[in-house]
Amino acid sequence: MEHHLDPRLLLAFAAALIAAKLLGELVERLGQPSVLGELLAGVALGPSVLGLVPLSDGMFLLAEIGVMLLLFEVGLETNLEELGRVGGPALVVALVGMVLPFVGGFLVTKLLGYPALAAVFVGAALMATSIGITARVLTELKMLATREGQIILGAAVADDILGLVVLAVVSRIADQGGVEIWAVGKATGLAIGFLAAALLLGIPVGRRLVKVVDRAAVRGVLVAASVALALLLAFVAARVGSAPIVGAFAAGLVLARTNRRHEIDTALKPIVDIFAPLFFVFVGAQVNVAFLNPAVAENRAALLLALLLSVVGFLGKMAAGWGAWGGVRRAFIGAGMVPRGEVGLIFASVGRATGALPERVFVALVLTVFATTFLAPPLLKILRPRRPASSSARSA
Amino acid sequence: MEHHLDPRLLLAFAAALIAAKLLGELVERLGQPSVLGELLAGVALGPSVLGLVPLSDGMFLLAEIGVMLLLFEVGLETNLEELGRVGGPALVVALVGMVLPFVGGFLVTKLLGYPALAAVFVGAALMATSIGITARVLTELKMLATREGQIILGAAVADDILGLVVLAVVSRIADQGGVEIWAVGKATGLAIGFLAAALLLGIPVGRRLVKVVDRAAVRGVLVAASVALALLLAFVAARVGSAPIVGAFAAGLVLARTNRRHEIDTALKPIVDIFAPLFFVFVGAQVNVAFLNPAVAENRAALLLALLLSVVGFLGKMAAGWGAWGGVRRAFIGAGMVPRGEVGLIFASVGRATGALPERVFVALVLTVFATTFLAPPLLKILRPRRPASSSARSA
Repeated sequence: MEHHLDPRLLLAFAAALIAAKLLGELVERLGQPSVLGELLAGVALGPSVLGLVPLSDGMFLLAEIGVMLLLFEVGLETNLEELGRVGGPALVVALVGMVLPFVGGFLVTKLLGYPALAAVFVGAALMATSIGITARVLTELKMLATREGQIILGAAVADDILGLVVLAVVSRIADQGGVEIWAVGKATGLAIGFLAAALLLGIPVGRRLVKVVDRAAVRGVLVAASVALALLLAFVAARVGSAPIVGAFAAGLVLARTNRRHEIDTALKPIVDIFAPLFFVFVGAQVNVAFLNPAVAENRAALLLALLLSVVGFLGKMAAGWGAWGGVRRAFIGAGMVPRGEVGLIFASVGRATGALPERVFVALVLTVFATTFLAPPLLKILRPRRPASSSARSA
Repeated sequence: MEHHLDPRLLLAFAAALIAAKLLGELVERLGQPSVLGELLAGVALGPSVLGLVPLSDGMFLLAEIGVMLLLFEVGLETNLEELGRVGGPALVVALVGMVLPFVGGFLVTKLLGYPALAAVFVGAALMATSIGITARVLTELKMLATREGQIILGAAVADDILGLVVLAVVSRIADQGGVEIWAVGKATGLAIGFLAAALLLGIPVGRRLVKVVDRAAVRGVLVAASVALALLLAFVAARVGSAPIVGAFAAGLVLARTNRRHEIDTALKPIVDIFAPLFFVFVGAQVNVAFLNPAVAENRAALLLALLLSVVGFLGKMAAGWGAWGGVRRAFIGAGMVPRGEVGLIFASVGRATGALPERVFVALVLTVFATTFLAPPLLKILRPRRPASSSARSA
């Protein structure tokens, strides 16, 4: 009862929605994916420019709900068999796209004279692709259901799962100076085991759920039960050390195999329309434009490091596209893996919290995450294959 | 970047949705409005029983978004002319329903030997009806568009607005021992002026907004723009000292007069289905069942006070129903005014924070708010007029 709603959060929510749609529309008319406009809206509304959207806990919560619902929707529009069919190339793309940026990031940081532990954190932070950005651009370009789209999606999920395992390992090294091999195995097993269990148990549970829901008399039970399943799997994913979005995505995959898929998807769309922009605005709001000014001496070292990290981060993921096979446009797949996001930022903040990352390296890492994120949407648009969908996948 | 999503909030969200729908369904099959089940789900999940739904800031934020969206939807389904046509009886019902519970609450508290300032807070806390509970039950009973429903809705909005003016006045008395008459006039003018301005300016703005939105190419602009308008008006309402829900309701009234009303309503329904239950669960979760045990000596004085306050609070609002005219079922209107909610709890917490309310009186006040809230849904169901809608209002 002692809670108080800060009215500024209502204003921030409204401003985020309006600016995201306005700039999204503008950017789309300029021929770019509208998510770029939403990211720019975030930069403009964030604390370093207009200060209308705070980086507060409340805003973060709404943004997280937004990205979970977005991944839930993407899962719902994904065919698990199609995804399984590209499992081989997706895994190779994921692994190449983790190893090359790690090695590149480590070497660049080490060669510039920073400590080895900092270099490990930087390398690790460059590994994971942002599923949110990638999925959103693929949906906008209507490429989600193509073979390329499925490989990107599968690889992005895989490197998010593996990236968080690496985070657990690297954090333990920072804390205790070393790590036991069984701990690495346990973390990996838990994260992969969760996804396998969620899909194996989830599919019969999802079908039963839909049948129970059919008998309900009160309003809105189907959408409430679906979202509840997404939240439950997101909770379990977080508990086993994986990302909540992986759980939400799994819930979507599971419910995509029920006969109520279209109904759930229809009900979900307006919810995603309201909350997903908050995620992209929140990502943009974290850009501190003050760090971009090269006239400030301290910024120059960070900007140089960021530039080099962006280059190795970009090249490493682009090269990963060549790990795919089966008549696909490899450059498009590589570009789809370029944006870094949530996991990269989590690495940066854990690295700073444990003292492993000097302030300057931290800033450079954050700038690198943003550079790759802002680069990917126009790049994907340019590299999009101009042909009918290459697989039998249904259009999204 | 240092934000961390507490996974327990995901579990709380999921548990709230599941329990609300399950108990809502059960209660509806027992012939009661399902909102009662959602409130009971909250009691069960709250800290005093299972402890799955915390009274945290995050949960509160989601609950507040839920009740704002609910009132936005109710506004969207309300015809402003119909509402204006019952303005006279609604105002009389609101005023009688504020004066009688105030006098009754004041006298009961004073006669039981508590200080005069505490008695003023108690009386004031019993004045405002919970729009959320009332609107939800009216929707469930399909009574929102009837003359009775419109009178209840108008009166509940009016006493919420006036109740928050009284809160400003009473808080100033508690702080400074007195209040200037111009401050009372200013607070009243601001709150009423906001609603008038929102409707007068809002209707042309809403129509223009819909036209602009029609030209958009990106997805989900109509629903995003509508929700943004609701949030903006909620923000302004809060800024002028009124309740955010009043602003959200006004936004609904405004958009109800556009030619896209049905589309907005359709898109809004699943969002309300997900978030509104969180409000009712959060209300229920605030019930501390430990206070209900009469075997504990300290509880008995609070329970006695709560019983007496519930009686005067109930009778005062029931009597207010007789302030209405025009061939309506007055007992139904009175029952619609019985549930106390947000504003009553705000009074209780401000009273405790300023030291005006002794702990025992605070507990009694909170119990009274809950007693009236839980009593209203079955009462409304019993008293519902069994005849076709008495006015020309469209069915909700």
